[in-house]
Amino acid sequence: MAIQVALVGTGLVGSAILSQLALPTIAKHAVLVSVSNSKRTVFSPNGISLPLAPDFVQTEGTVLPLSQLVSQLHDIKAHATKTVLIDSTASSAVANAYPEILRAGISIITPNKLALSSSSALYNSIQSALEADPSIRLLHESTVGAGLPIISTLNDLVKTGDKVKRIEGVFSGTLSYIFNNFSPAVLHDDPAKFSDIVGQAKRLGYTEPNPHSDLSGSDVARKLTILARLLPETPIPLPEGYLSVPTSSLSPEGLETLDDGDEYVRQLKESDAEFEEMRRRAEEMGQVLRYVGVVDAEKCTVHASLETYPVTHPFATSLGGSDNIIAFHTERYSRPLIIQGAGAGAAVTAMGVMSDLLKLV
Amino acid sequence: MAIQVALVGTGLVGSAILSQLALPTIAKHAVLVSVSNSKRTVFSPNGISLPLAPDFVQTEGTVLPLSQLVSQLHDIKAHATKTVLIDSTASSAVANAYPEILRAGISIITPNKLALSSSSALYNSIQSALEADPSIRLLHESTVGAGLPIISTLNDLVKTGDKVKRIEGVFSGTLSYIFNNFSPAVLHDDPAKFSDIVGQAKRLGYTEPNPHSDLSGSDVARKLTILARLLPETPIPLPEGYLSVPTSSLSPEGLETLDDGDEYVRQLKESDAEFEEMRRRAEEMGQVLRYVGVVDAEKCTVHASLETYPVTHPFATSLGGSDNIIAFHTERYSRPLIIQGAGAGAAVTAMGVMSDLLKLV
Repeated sequence: MAIQVALVGTGLVGSAILSQLALPTIAKHAVLVSVSNSKRTVFSPNGISLPLAPDFVQTEGTVLPLSQLVSQLHDIKAHATKTVLIDSTASSAVANAYPEILRAGISIITPNKLALSSSSALYNSIQSALEADPSIRLLHESTVGAGLPIISTLNDLVKTGDKVKRIEGVFSGTLSYIFNNFSPAVLHDDPAKFSDIVGQAKRLGYTEPNPHSDLSGSDVARKLTILARLLPETPIPLPEGYLSVPTSSLSPEGLETLDDGDEYVRQLKESDAEFEEMRRRAEEMGQVLRYVGVVDAEKCTVHASLETYPVTHPFATSLGGSDNIIAFHTERYSRPLIIQGAGAGAAVTAMGVMSDLLKLV
Repeated sequence: MAIQVALVGTGLVGSAILSQLALPTIAKHAVLVSVSNSKRTVFSPNGISLPLAPDFVQTEGTVLPLSQLVSQLHDIKAHATKTVLIDSTASSAVANAYPEILRAGISIITPNKLALSSSSALYNSIQSALEADPSIRLLHESTVGAGLPIISTLNDLVKTGDKVKRIEGVFSGTLSYIFNNFSPAVLHDDPAKFSDIVGQAKRLGYTEPNPHSDLSGSDVARKLTILARLLPETPIPLPEGYLSVPTSSLSPEGLETLDDGDEYVRQLKESDAEFEEMRRRAEEMGQVLRYVGVVDAEKCTVHASLETYPVTHPFATSLGGSDNIIAFHTERYSRPLIIQGAGAGAAVTAMGVMSDLLKLV
């Protein structure tokens, strides 16, 4: 029997999910019963026809708080084999409701990092709900690397008895773009200024509206938290989630309170000399700058920081665009298992969500 | 309910599968009901205790032809949710029996490339059996890249509506080792002879007993056939499976009939000058030699051949040991999605098998 799907969040990723749900390969396994955004919900137990007009929820939906949606999904579940809620919001209200959703017998698929990278109180409450009913799942392939098979590979390594020693990578598509251009393996004659490249990334839509969110490193710290928590028997202490991860912010002091992203880029100019000096020193040693995250299961440490790599290192030579690259060093894979490719974007994120959905059916 | 598992083949990979089946993470989902090798079978519907002594099948087993094993598995299936046969043999007799096994309601997980890379008659007969009962699956992650997530990634790309344009990679761990050493990105002062490196690979257990099998390129052609057949609506004609793939053999003419692997390596010396000349010409152009496979869905071609790559290309810089590297060029991933790591070895192959098993439960 087809799985019943409720989608919460109709932004760029939500829209890409809707168009992939309409594909015959997916549609034969899944029936969309509900679509919500922050204001309205369309609910139809017999299935909503796809593809949807973009303003469908605005015109057809009714106001339905999340808890009522969950209770209605629970009610129709009796007739179905499985119900799954896809959380494509960036809402902490939705994230905080995961334990309640799971306890209602509804699985969750999410590209939203909030629930899995915040306090261990929320994390443990989610784990308890999952343990109470093994038929309920929480899948989140697209929280790290979007459509790249990072979470599933880590789970496969762990479940098949490999010992993961270290995970190291470029986890932010935005910071990848910025440093691939600011500190390439082969330097241009007239290298660009740091703030100009950040401004360019902003214009291309690679940064958040305010680049501070990207330069702060918090997105990387959240991804590292999610990965570290998947390692068994590794007492990496992360009581406050990503806030417990030592994270070097690249955002100059004083700028974090600016609301205006354009003003942020203008004021960032004052730090150009400092970044230029870091690049120059790295270059003298035959190295490049990359903002990386490391989960070290042997040393029981996690950190997100700007590091230098030799120009011959894969992080220097083979990255381009806004690529992510993640290397798993394990007992079996002494030379690392490496996965690389676009780590952000609506279509590839939706692909990670669909990959999870296909696992459930 | 736990899945019932029958293992056929107790060689290196089979033994690694047995030890991974004993892991608590796997054992809670799977019950081993039968173990066979080419001579004997142990069959126990209530489950065989793991770990097994290495000579268990020799001492405890009875002679039981495959067709009788299938019929016994079919009989006990009525009480179980799912039964799966893991084919860790290199036997064409087992491969030819896939349609019969699937029609008996038994799923198959296999690292054995034979069934999926041979004639389209066998392939189509397998597909028909699968289409007749959607609850039966044939999973084969470890046929390409061992434990690397190659097949699952390709399936995810295709099922989520991406258009795969080209798959290109180093698919043979053996040929990767040989050319990473024979034609490195940075050449040694006193470069080794081709036949010496092949001999070294043989001593390290990286080649088949007779290296001709590796140098012929047929292993690569088989993997390309498997990948090409997973692409939808791509009329790449492969009526005779891997035999239909244009494949450049590196094995000198006349040597293919030698039975003795050591003698093969001795006679290979006569071709050293020819390989040396190829390396020298590549080097003059700033290039290295790599034995690659390409599935080009736009040109509708497949080929396996020795090619040259710039020393800055990922195939030149980031490969080492017996790494595989596979790049997917797609509509979504214009910069390719790349997966790299050890592509051969019993433990990583068994990991690919277990990853498939976890998908079934």
